[in-house]
Amino acid sequence: MRIVVALGGNALLKRGEPMTAERQRENVRMAALALAPLATEHELVISHGNGPQVGLLALQAACYSAVDPYPLDVLDAQTEGMIGYLIEQELGNLLPFEIPLATLLTMVEVDPADPAFRRPSKFVGPGYSKIDADRATREKEWTFRQDGDMWRRVVPSPRPQRIFEKRPIRWLLEMGSVVICAGGGGIPVMYLPGRERVLGGVEAVIDKDLASALLAKDVGADILVMATDVDGVYLDWNTPSSRVMRDTTPVELKAHTFAPGSMGPKVEAACQFVEETGKRAAIGALGDIPALVTGDAGTQVRSEQV
Amino acid sequence: MRIVVALGGNALLKRGEPMTAERQRENVRMAALALAPLATEHELVISHGNGPQVGLLALQAACYSAVDPYPLDVLDAQTEGMIGYLIEQELGNLLPFEIPLATLLTMVEVDPADPAFRRPSKFVGPGYSKIDADRATREKEWTFRQDGDMWRRVVPSPRPQRIFEKRPIRWLLEMGSVVICAGGGGIPVMYLPGRERVLGGVEAVIDKDLASALLAKDVGADILVMATDVDGVYLDWNTPSSRVMRDTTPVELKAHTFAPGSMGPKVEAACQFVEETGKRAAIGALGDIPALVTGDAGTQVRSEQV
Repeated sequence: MRIVVALGGNALLKRGEPMTAERQRENVRMAALALAPLATEHELVISHGNGPQVGLLALQAACYSAVDPYPLDVLDAQTEGMIGYLIEQELGNLLPFEIPLATLLTMVEVDPADPAFRRPSKFVGPGYSKIDADRATREKEWTFRQDGDMWRRVVPSPRPQRIFEKRPIRWLLEMGSVVICAGGGGIPVMYLPGRERVLGGVEAVIDKDLASALLAKDVGADILVMATDVDGVYLDWNTPSSRVMRDTTPVELKAHTFAPGSMGPKVEAACQFVEETGKRAAIGALGDIPALVTGDAGTQVRSEQV
Repeated sequence: MRIVVALGGNALLKRGEPMTAERQRENVRMAALALAPLATEHELVISHGNGPQVGLLALQAACYSAVDPYPLDVLDAQTEGMIGYLIEQELGNLLPFEIPLATLLTMVEVDPADPAFRRPSKFVGPGYSKIDADRATREKEWTFRQDGDMWRRVVPSPRPQRIFEKRPIRWLLEMGSVVICAGGGGIPVMYLPGRERVLGGVEAVIDKDLASALLAKDVGADILVMATDVDGVYLDWNTPSSRVMRDTTPVELKAHTFAPGSMGPKVEAACQFVEETGKRAAIGALGDIPALVTGDAGTQVRSEQV
């Protein structure tokens, strides 16, 4: 089988954990333990989140005033390198040397007309005082929104339209390589308005689950697995009647609403992949990855209930 | 022809330039203009330096005290992402869409017994006061050396022994992709002493020209081009009798000494590649890249004088 596994941000850093390199490496090692059995039996593509890592780079950059902070596309590229490295190394340590691994930088096209650009919604980087936020609004044309006592930058989260490196990703898979790509949902890029065929970076973040659904479709995956810190999709989450969904369909899922920025995008990505390809998606816990692939754990989404 | 071009640090940031993202992008665009004609006619691999970029990340990390600075291997991985992104995007903007580009994270093995580990020599990161340097020496086991009025960290520069991703790099080339890899000389890794077959990161920097020579040999390149800010290798550099070498051999080059950390490693890399493969190396100016390939500019190094 050809499998795309999207690792949730918590696979790399759990909420409240110190953001040290060592901790991230330990968490990646846990994820690698869950992934290694797949790599020896299947064609495997791994994508991952990058929210806390981009946040840390933005914090570090903000406190060093001698050089203007780099734009988000460049920070995304940095995190693809960093996180891809940790995954490639830790997973490689569990695999026979004969299995090659390749981490590929991934640019993802977004549409300048995407409505997300009219309402930035994703918090990134440090908290600012009102005065500093107002100054950054004037000087950098950033948008801010209040987050508790502080003001934080918000950026748009447009939909992924195209993965530029899909040909190299496919070739590497066909040659037997494990491929790590589309980290952080990919680096957001667009053809610059008014400049024909000139691609540039975009100050935005792309949802990694939606990007992973596009990736899974592009590589002709048999299954899209989204690994997170809960064991499936729950109805009535956080209520006494909360219950997990085991086998479901896009039609059934769309009759419910799920937490935006959390289970919502995963459900949307699963529905999109299943509807467009007729293949299967699975949402569940990181440690259950092998069972998610065999269909024995998590929430299994199929085009028709089996 | 199959060509490896190693872009010198000055292709990305000239000495004394502000280290902004915009400036780096402009410089990369200039390099891309020199590289684009090669990409349409030949198989092309691009490597690059990362010294100033790692320095900036270390500076930013040092001023944000809430999280311990990440080790050098992780910072290297970040710069491979960032610089690779800029090169891939700017070069892609000059090429027809049919030519795919791929930026590949690259780990390079070093030998724990390399004598470089006994005498760290490369400055990295910010300047410290004597007191702070002494504390970091105790707490992090860093090594410091005086640099003007300040103390700066020095790290070893061991020789590159093996490029882990050489199989994917070759496959991508064979499929017609321009490949960007081995940035910053690659991420230094080694099998951890006492732990069989477990690869880990190393606090070191690998010379990018030596890594590029290894890369060129690994991919069976016909020519290794090292692009820098001078138009060739000079004898008696900085003296009235200074003169450029046009056609030369490893034997002739080895009769002279060249500036360590600057022309020295380029000459060494050229000699190594030419001696081991019988192919050609060229050292010269970034803008002359097409002429360096045809043999009409720079210093051309062949196993025997033509």
